[in-house]
This record gives sequence, C-alpha cells and structure tokens, in this order.
Amino acid sequence: MLPVSLQKLIDELAKLPGIGPKTAQRLAMHLLKSPHSRIRPLGEALLSLQDGLSFCEKCWNVTDSDICKICDDPSRDETQICVVEDVLDVLAIEKTGKYKGLYHVLHGVLSPIDGISADQLKIQELFDRVKKNPEIQELVVATNPSLEGDATALYISKYLNGGDVKVTRIARGLPIGADLEYTDLATLGKALLNRTGY
Amino acid sequence: MLPVSLQKLIDELAKLPGIGPKTAQRLAMHLLKSPHSRIRPLGEALLSLQDGLSFCEKCWNVTDSDICKICDDPSRDETQICVVEDVLDVLAIEKTGKYKGLYHVLHGVLSPIDGISADQLKIQELFDRVKKNPEIQELVVATNPSLEGDATALYISKYLNGGDVKVTRIARGLPIGADLEYTDLATLGKALLNRTGY
Repeated sequence: MLPVSLQKLIDELAKLPGIGPKTAQRLAMHLLKSPHSRIRPLGEALLSLQDGLSFCEKCWNVTDSDICKICDDPSRDETQICVVEDVLDVLAIEKTGKYKGLYHVLHGVLSPIDGISADQLKIQELFDRVKKNPEIQELVVATNPSLEGDATALYISKYLNGGDVKVTRIARGLPIGADLEYTDLATLGKALLNRTGY
Repeated sequence: MLPVSLQKLIDELAKLPGIGPKTAQRLAMHLLKSPHSRIRPLGEALLSLQDGLSFCEKCWNVTDSDICKICDDPSRDETQICVVEDVLDVLAIEKTGKYKGLYHVLHGVLSPIDGISADQLKIQELFDRVKKNPEIQELVVATNPSLEGDATALYISKYLNGGDVKVTRIARGLPIGADLEYTDLATLGKALLNRTGY
C-alpha cells in the first residue's frame, strides 16, 4: 500500500534492535516529512560509518587509527588496565572522570548458554598484553555485575592468580539515590559485606 | 573520545523522535558491528527516500506517482471518503479490511494550543473535493478520539451541515479485550450511549 521507497525504509529500520514495526513506521514518516538536508547527514553517516574504523591494536576499543586516542595519550596511567565488556562501557567510565588508566575491551562476556567461550572474546589478547607489558600492576575488572560478568571476572582473576598483577573488581553496592527497602537482597548483602570506613 | 564518524552517526540518530542519546549509542554500536551489507540498504533507503515521493493530488496520501494507489483503484467505492489525520492512519484502516472507500489525509488536526489552524491542514482541499465530486455521499471522519480530533471532526461536520454529504464519525466505545472496571468514565459513557442492537 505504501510507496516502495518508504516501505523499504520501514523494513530496514525495523531490523534495528529495539525498533519494532510501529516505531519503524513512525520514524519513517518523521523522516519523510523532514527536509532533505536533515536526512542526508544520517544516510551519509551510515554509509561512511565503517570506512576507516577499526579496533585499537592494544585495547580493542573502536578507533579511526591503529592505536586509539586513550592508548595514544601519554598522560594515562599505564600501570592500570580497566577490563570492560563493550566500547560503550569505556565511554561511560570516561564520563565519570574517576579513572586515568588504560582499557581493554573484551567485546562480550563468557556465556556458555549463548555459546560464547573465551576464544570468541579478547581474553587471550588481554593475557598476552599483561605478559608483554610488565609495567601493568592492576587489572580493574569492570564487566557488568551480572552472572556472566561475574563469571568472566572470576575467569580472569583465576588465570592471573599467583602472578604480579593485582586483579580487582568494581564495587557492588547500593546505587546513589536507591532505597534500602526496595533494594534486592543480593545487592544489600554485598553493600553490607563491602562496607567502607571513614 | 569516540571516532568522528561514529560520533556523527550517534548525533544524527539522537535527533530522531523517541531516540535518546543512550539508544542512539546502542544503535550506532549495533550498526558498527553489523556487516556492511546490512548497513548499506538502510543508508541508501534514507538517501533515496524522498526521491519521487510526493502527496496524492486527490487525497494527500503519500505516493510515488501523481495519484496514489488507492485513488487509482477503480474497485474502491467513490461515494465514501474516510478523513484521517495521518498517512499511517490510512495504513491502519486498510489493514482492517473493513473499508472500501477512498481517503482524505488532513496532515494534522486543528489545535489552537499548538497554533495549528485550518489553513495549515488539507481541510479546504477536502471541502473543494466534496464540492467538485457530487458522487461523494459520506465523509467518515476518522480523526483520533482526542480533544483535537473531535474538534476537527466537529469543524468539518458544521461546515458541511445542510449539504448533500452525510458526515459520520467512527464509533467510540470499549476496545476489544478491555475491562469495564478499568475503563475511563468518558469511554464507558459513550459505549452506553452508542449501544447497538442485535
């Protein structure tokens, strides 16, 4: 019923994660009514997205050169490596301004149920990096506080156990603004166990 | 912190309605990891979206020729015109399969609070169409059952009052699967007033 070009756009939009057929229709109608000067940048950004983008040889963050901006920054603390699941996690941690070390992006977590094992992640690359760079003193494992994230953190800490590198895990506890009464037992338990002094 | 091309895509995606900065990030990362063969169709669909698309000269539905497919279909009942707010409403009504007449897309509703008056809609075009086409016997006003939709329907019916064209309004009542107990009073009142016989 709709013109071919409009239907094609709706179909393509509906393939994106979290965008169902109704949202795709609404987005397409919005774009149809937008001036061409507002649609073109989006189309061009899509077409040129992967041109020249690759993953950093050192930390597997996304980059437009061989080495990403963080690894290339001489002011960063080379003794700390923050291990994260995803590129967006690097962004989130950078925004806090509380971390000045380097990163290592795993590109996923161990998840036997989804068939994801260590060789599909950048875990071996992490171990090689630790071996080759004796200046590394601490791995801050910042995978998500989920079953898979915890298992991945445990895997890394077991592997490096006995070596010179200290493996730490980001703190679990109550998020700022949380309500004790409505916090789940596992989080509340962790918050009690990991209480800090003044 | 992110490469320019990736940041540009995130910025462009975040301009879409209902897509915030976090969703834009997630979509961009998804696209970055997708094979180029899956991104290209979306980019191309965007760039070519408005090429050759226009609004039907008769009903203002979106079309890739002068007259849309519905107006061009000789099997449609030319005596009925369904008046809708938006192109997507045409699609929704078509999917029901319960309507065989033609359409008229207003491209909005009267809304003094948003500064939208009759001359910004295709209302005059509707009146001209009714005047020029004496075969039209009924206008089924299917604007949304909102304050603005109702006001627009009332405006149309007042204007055509006394003419040969019957103006009807789609039924208000309980949606299928609704629960009487949780239905708002206005809807329940309408459902009682507009009860139908067997």
